[in-house]
Amino acid sequence: MARSGRFKGGLAPEAATFCASIGFDWRLVGEDLDGSLAHLAMLEATGILASEKAAIIRRGLEQIRQEWQRGELTPRAEWEDVHMNIEGRLHEIIGPDAGYLHMARSRNDQVATDMHLYMMRVAGRFRSGLSEVLASLIELAEETASVIMPGTTHFQPAQPIRMAHHWLAYGWMFHRDLERLRDWEKRGSLSPLGAGALAGTPYPTDPVLAQHQLGFDALYQNSLDAVSDRDYLLEFLAWASIFGTHVSRMAEELVLWSHPRLGYVSLGDGYSTGSSIMPQKRNPDVAELLRGKSGRLFGRLMGLLTVMKGLPLAYNSDMQEDKEAVFDVVDTVDSILALLPGLLGSLEIYPERMRQAVEEGFVNATDLADRLAQGGMPFRQAHHRVGELVRAVIEAGYDRFEDVPQDTWETLAPDIPHTWLEHLTPEALVESRKQSFSPASASIEGQIAALKQSLRGGLGD
Amino acid sequence: MARSGRFKGGLAPEAATFCASIGFDWRLVGEDLDGSLAHLAMLEATGILASEKAAIIRRGLEQIRQEWQRGELTPRAEWEDVHMNIEGRLHEIIGPDAGYLHMARSRNDQVATDMHLYMMRVAGRFRSGLSEVLASLIELAEETASVIMPGTTHFQPAQPIRMAHHWLAYGWMFHRDLERLRDWEKRGSLSPLGAGALAGTPYPTDPVLAQHQLGFDALYQNSLDAVSDRDYLLEFLAWASIFGTHVSRMAEELVLWSHPRLGYVSLGDGYSTGSSIMPQKRNPDVAELLRGKSGRLFGRLMGLLTVMKGLPLAYNSDMQEDKEAVFDVVDTVDSILALLPGLLGSLEIYPERMRQAVEEGFVNATDLADRLAQGGMPFRQAHHRVGELVRAVIEAGYDRFEDVPQDTWETLAPDIPHTWLEHLTPEALVESRKQSFSPASASIEGQIAALKQSLRGGLGD
Amino acid sequence: MARSGRFKGGLAPEAATFCASIGFDWRLVGEDLDGSLAHLAMLEATGILASEKAAIIRRGLEQIRQEWQRGELTPRAEWEDVHMNIEGRLHEIIGPDAGYLHMARSRNDQVATDMHLYMMRVAGRFRSGLSEVLASLIELAEETASVIMPGTTHFQPAQPIRMAHHWLAYGWMFHRDLERLRDWEKRGSLSPLGAGALAGTPYPTDPVLAQHQLGFDALYQNSLDAVSDRDYLLEFLAWASIFGTHVSRMAEELVLWSHPRLGYVSLGDGYSTGSSIMPQKRNPDVAELLRGKSGRLFGRLMGLLTVMKGLPLAYNSDMQEDKEAVFDVVDTVDSILALLPGLLGSLEIYPERMRQAVEEGFVNATDLADRLAQGGMPFRQAHHRVGELVRAVIEAGYDRFEDVPQDTWETLAPDIPHTWLEHLTPEALVESRKQSFSPASASIEGQIAALKQSLRGGLGD
Amino acid sequence: MARSGRFKGGLAPEAATFCASIGFDWRLVGEDLDGSLAHLAMLEATGILASEKAAIIRRGLEQIRQEWQRGELTPRAEWEDVHMNIEGRLHEIIGPDAGYLHMARSRNDQVATDMHLYMMRVAGRFRSGLSEVLASLIELAEETASVIMPGTTHFQPAQPIRMAHHWLAYGWMFHRDLERLRDWEKRGSLSPLGAGALAGTPYPTDPVLAQHQLGFDALYQNSLDAVSDRDYLLEFLAWASIFGTHVSRMAEELVLWSHPRLGYVSLGDGYSTGSSIMPQKRNPDVAELLRGKSGRLFGRLMGLLTVMKGLPLAYNSDMQEDKEAVFDVVDTVDSILALLPGLLGSLEIYPERMRQAVEEGFVNATDLADRLAQGGMPFRQAHHRVGELVRAVIEAGYDRFEDVPQDTWETLAPDIPHTWLEHLTPEALVESRKQSFSPASASIEGQIAALKQSLRGGLGD
Repeated sequence: MARSGRFKGGLAPEAATFCASIGFDWRLVGEDLDGSLAHLAMLEATGILASEKAAIIRRGLEQIRQEWQRGELTPRAEWEDVHMNIEGRLHEIIGPDAGYLHMARSRNDQVATDMHLYMMRVAGRFRSGLSEVLASLIELAEETASVIMPGTTHFQPAQPIRMAHHWLAYGWMFHRDLERLRDWEKRGSLSPLGAGALAGTPYPTDPVLAQHQLGFDALYQNSLDAVSDRDYLLEFLAWASIFGTHVSRMAEELVLWSHPRLGYVSLGDGYSTGSSIMPQKRNPDVAELLRGKSGRLFGRLMGLLTVMKGLPLAYNSDMQEDKEAVFDVVDTVDSILALLPGLLGSLEIYPERMRQAVEEGFVNATDLADRLAQGGMPFRQAHHRVGELVRAVIEAGYDRFEDVPQDTWETLAPDIPHTWLEHLTPEALVESRKQSFSPASASIEGQIAALKQSLRGGLGD
Repeated sequence: MARSGRFKGGLAPEAATFCASIGFDWRLVGEDLDGSLAHLAMLEATGILASEKAAIIRRGLEQIRQEWQRGELTPRAEWEDVHMNIEGRLHEIIGPDAGYLHMARSRNDQVATDMHLYMMRVAGRFRSGLSEVLASLIELAEETASVIMPGTTHFQPAQPIRMAHHWLAYGWMFHRDLERLRDWEKRGSLSPLGAGALAGTPYPTDPVLAQHQLGFDALYQNSLDAVSDRDYLLEFLAWASIFGTHVSRMAEELVLWSHPRLGYVSLGDGYSTGSSIMPQKRNPDVAELLRGKSGRLFGRLMGLLTVMKGLPLAYNSDMQEDKEAVFDVVDTVDSILALLPGLLGSLEIYPERMRQAVEEGFVNATDLADRLAQGGMPFRQAHHRVGELVRAVIEAGYDRFEDVPQDTWETLAPDIPHTWLEHLTPEALVESRKQSFSPASASIEGQIAALKQSLRGGLGD
Repeated sequence: MARSGRFKGGLAPEAATFCASIGFDWRLVGEDLDGSLAHLAMLEATGILASEKAAIIRRGLEQIRQEWQRGELTPRAEWEDVHMNIEGRLHEIIGPDAGYLHMARSRNDQVATDMHLYMMRVAGRFRSGLSEVLASLIELAEETASVIMPGTTHFQPAQPIRMAHHWLAYGWMFHRDLERLRDWEKRGSLSPLGAGALAGTPYPTDPVLAQHQLGFDALYQNSLDAVSDRDYLLEFLAWASIFGTHVSRMAEELVLWSHPRLGYVSLGDGYSTGSSIMPQKRNPDVAELLRGKSGRLFGRLMGLLTVMKGLPLAYNSDMQEDKEAVFDVVDTVDSILALLPGLLGSLEIYPERMRQAVEEGFVNATDLADRLAQGGMPFRQAHHRVGELVRAVIEAGYDRFEDVPQDTWETLAPDIPHTWLEHLTPEALVESRKQSFSPASASIEGQIAALKQSLRGGLGD
Repeated sequence: MARSGRFKGGLAPEAATFCASIGFDWRLVGEDLDGSLAHLAMLEATGILASEKAAIIRRGLEQIRQEWQRGELTPRAEWEDVHMNIEGRLHEIIGPDAGYLHMARSRNDQVATDMHLYMMRVAGRFRSGLSEVLASLIELAEETASVIMPGTTHFQPAQPIRMAHHWLAYGWMFHRDLERLRDWEKRGSLSPLGAGALAGTPYPTDPVLAQHQLGFDALYQNSLDAVSDRDYLLEFLAWASIFGTHVSRMAEELVLWSHPRLGYVSLGDGYSTGSSIMPQKRNPDVAELLRGKSGRLFGRLMGLLTVMKGLPLAYNSDMQEDKEAVFDVVDTVDSILALLPGLLGSLEIYPERMRQAVEEGFVNATDLADRLAQGGMPFRQAHHRVGELVRAVIEAGYDRFEDVPQDTWETLAPDIPHTWLEHLTPEALVESRKQSFSPASASIEGQIAALKQSLRGGLGD
């Protein structure tokens, strides 16, 4: 906490603790150094700071970076944030000249610059991680292109699909996450450096120089906005929450499919855990945790939205709460992205268990109705007719149309030729769907090709 | 609720009430008719349905549209949703041929189509509304370009700015909302029609035909995703929450500025209310409500995130909860956008009250420190020196540097020429900031021009 | 909106719409009349209002109540809230004397009184509804006391339990909801009437008289708090969210158990729906909707928390947002409570399907380890030993210990007598658990008796 | 993560990291030891474990406690949670006998026991902290009993009050927090120990013994509920969110009152910070952070609600997410409670600045209307009349009724005797309010006495 000569005593100890951010903002060391070096280069280039002074400061900052990279720089609690730690260390190294670095800059634009830099680096890492998740899903899709499973609505078997189609549905969700991340990056790549406390500075600075050195696409266009905007963090947290819904849905399915009565998949030994008490247990622990992480992601979004609600312009200290929320979400997403490819790669797939489920569920009933409708009966009427037939077949003691003997069939369904049943095998049903987004083989191939092309096209680079 | 011939009894009355959506989905009548007409055209074009049948159904649907436009179509509770209402009415008009319309389509892709269409129309309306809000802010900025106010951090006067700069900060926030809306629209303009219940259909349909007729940019690429994706609604709700933080911040400032001790602005009579008991009161009621709306917006986002958490693919009935959440947010944003231009236009501005606040707050202290630093003193030292001086001046009984008589000044600050004070008027300070995003006149003009150009460039069209 | 003579024009139309609450506060008619009658009685009893005037007003209010009860009183939009509607109608009936009723009262304490009254009535209704849900669960428990099912952790069969135990777990959750509701009622039964706008009134009122007439336990103790406290609503919304987690968990299980591969239960025809396209489907639609309602409940809590965040004392118009949030939650909980008893009563239970799952899952492995440990082996070692054995048995091609022929067993587990298996039947395992909270018969009976006694003791009355 | 002999390889490294909880559950060391000792005592008392073995284990556990208390016990990452760390260390100290401790206990009931113990200790600490906050508010109330300030609605001066009344309003809010905490403690003081993994245990345990040793009021009544209940954590988080709204409201007022144009209070030097760039600044930084903490509190509640939504019984690993959420909230509330008494004690109060605001705002207008009404005019009419008069007085160039010269008054208000103004001083107005919850002196004294008595009565002990 900066305190000018206006104050007599120090902060009360519990207030100092309460306000200190060094416990969580230390991870910004690299970005803070980069921001300071860009600021310094600008001060020198514009003649605000003499080159000799600039050189001294630059050497000091570079020394700090080396100490940090060697693990020799540790945060000191009495310097309450990362900025004061670097500033204090610089002062130790080069003496009072360190004070020139803060010319024409305020903590408000400095911290906003650090966070923007940090988030741009996060974005690059996330794109790469998402690309790997997509690659894993594509691989799974390729491996399961011939596996028939019950497509499900309301957690009830509905119509047969290829399992690849199911994996690709998640592929498209994560693909949207990549696109959404790209849009967010584009909008967040703005430099606030030079906005000062809130209103720029009387020094003849050139913020565009620093912006270029830092690699931002543009400057903010309003200095109040530059220091008090947290949209790029809110949008990031919203991004992570939506990503989290995708992860939680896939994780839920892995948990459900691992139930012994379904048994469609099992997680590899490297991703399963046992019980401290029940020796037979094989728990999809990792998938459960993945599902649960959505709570943390949603909560952090809610947290920062609340913080920003009703704050007057420009900077307010409430905004310091942005960091722990965002860092927690960054770490959570990093850990999920690190985990998913291995987890997906570890899955054992049990096609025969899915086949079993496909064959039990009358999943060819819609197609029977469609056949009736194609013969001229209005669909609503055909739908009702087949519904009755399902009930009759169950009451007659059968689980599948195919099991009904021909003579019984002719009693139950004199209006439906028994030969139709031959055309209602799961494979036939799946292939009969010719739409580009359907579960037929051609569609699976097309979806895989489209995702691969998008990745090759650089979406995740 | 569709029920095939499989079921014997009806729904329990309280279950029917619980599941019914006609209480809130009636607003989709127009979209449902459009979707059905596009589906019908596709069925006819592909030869799935004979043209004579198609013509009968089309006439029926057009008659329903006319009844609806004339206000003669009212929802019937026994037909539990908007789709069954239209289907039921169609059956009344054209008889059993109505049943052909549902060929090769499911409720799942139908309702997704309706919502996508609805949201695309909402987006257009919101862009137009945001453009009007921006126009109001630009106008306010033009009117207040010469008004000096205290720029604020921590709700403490900090440095003088032009009031225009403050309005423009909100301008850039709403401008980002417009950009974000554009990105969202681009990503949400996908047609799910033809995905059926989850897996396409064995009919030889051509979903691209329907997509084109409905004006969507593309088809979904996976039928499971098409019917179970709610990302476009989550991203919309997140958009509205971020927009809501902007509104709540501006509303907070209007409330604060209306306090008689500040008195920077007052809301026009058309936007102020009195008290039922206190005759002197003039309450910024409308601004308070605007501030409070953020709660509703955040809550609805949290609500739908929760709903989507952990749902297996594909459609689940939980998703029916999307509609009330989204419609409530649409109505809320509509009402805010309708209100803001008039509210902003009604503001009375009191420059002299802001001047009073500017002159009390030592808001020129930073610039005094900057001058010292420009003379060679490290900034940190200059900052400390001026902090001491502020304390000394207050203890000597003055509220402003400018009020200190020359001889007292020379005692308190022998190191600072008294003549410097002439250069520290609010106007001089503001104009001394030459950065493109600063509160100086050139920047204000540049910001206004940039916003106008963006609007002229079609961002809001 | 009250407007004194201070204002010249009216509210702008879109502001009037924005501020109007008559669209949602009309449901407070009864409470508003009760509050007014209590206020009137107090004014008369204290001599502030002459009895003749009081009688005129009372007759007017009673007439309004009759009109309302007969359905003849309809809200008028131009009277923007329920209070103005009643006040306006009173003026129509009795003329300017209506103005006396608002003496010594403000809209702020009036609306707070209405809401407190409303919530106390809601509480009574909810207690009764929860009691019925508990009764249904008790009944289910009684019916399933001898049904063995796989107790589950991580959605993996773990140890056998009685199904009754599972229903009773929900019973205790809802029982906690009842207790929590009781605590909330106790704390919320406070009268704000007489606090005026914020600071009481110079009239010689006696707020205790009105409190007694309205049936509140006590007065608020601070007038600022009385008009600006929304804790009782926040706590209510938090209550509903916790209740919502219980409902969502039970609903999830109903959905999962309805999967044909598990088939533990099916929802009655009155609570199942079909598909618009798939004639064979039997969807647990009602359970899915129940699960999804949690989103709405959580969201509304988040919404009102946000609204209350950072509001200065005393009343602010943001608080008007409390009503729609609370009413939506009240309606949601009402509909859930109305639905659950019938839904639970409609369940078909399939003991043999649960038996099948029990027998497949090595759910007796823990007990085998316990036996080893009881023989002296440290439990951790026994646990590891049985884990190995499970793997060996699976690798040998068996799904259950019981299926392993004696000779194979003696090869795989020479350290474990084959005869032990006889003592590891599900029934024996369940009954071997003697703790009072276990799934053994005695515990089931004890739990049922305890719940019944609690209900008889009046918790839900 | 417990892994029986069923697994071949180890966890994948990123899965181990993902699942590990030792990074955050280490704080449960004390509770885990207490729980283990109680379990051990029960095993011994029931004869399940021989006393010699029990003595060995007890000595081992006591040694671990001493190592921990001396700071010599550090968590090891390879033992992934606090339980395995203690179990592993015990094994190092006493060898394989350590394995006996886990007899008749599972990780599920163990971790639930630890958390229940932890929360009960937190509750005691919070009660004490809240009592100190209340004591500070009572002290402030005593100091400001004669300070008149503008009571505010809509952030507009409304009616004069005593500042003590304002502090006491917060006193009652925090008093409710204390009451709510008490109710929560009562309901949360339940022992899950003995519930095992989910279904009790075949060992002849006596869970009541352990419950008594641990100081819980009662046992859970259902073993499934015992291990999968997180209501006590959800209710705690909801408690903290409501507490957080109180803190945020008070903090907001401290920020607003610190604005130089209001200047009602200033935070002591120990609680104020400066600016890194603006030497004159005195920022209410601590109050802003306090306000911002509400976001974190709400977010964590939302997070855990989301986690619990839709989880089937009994334990699922998602629930592991409860800890970081709860611990973060515990730490946040601890830091707030540690801070508030000092912060409140540091406040400088400026009565004359409040007086200034009182005199500007026509805050006696309601009382003038009341006087008219007491003379027989219906209140609505009196209210309108005074509203007109306020407008006329302002138009005549006056800020207060009291400043209008008698002759002008007689022109503007021939119907209102000029002498009435003498009775409309702020002090007279405040004292004219005789209700027990009003801002008059007698009420202030009564409120202070009531709060003191409640604290003396032991609510916070």
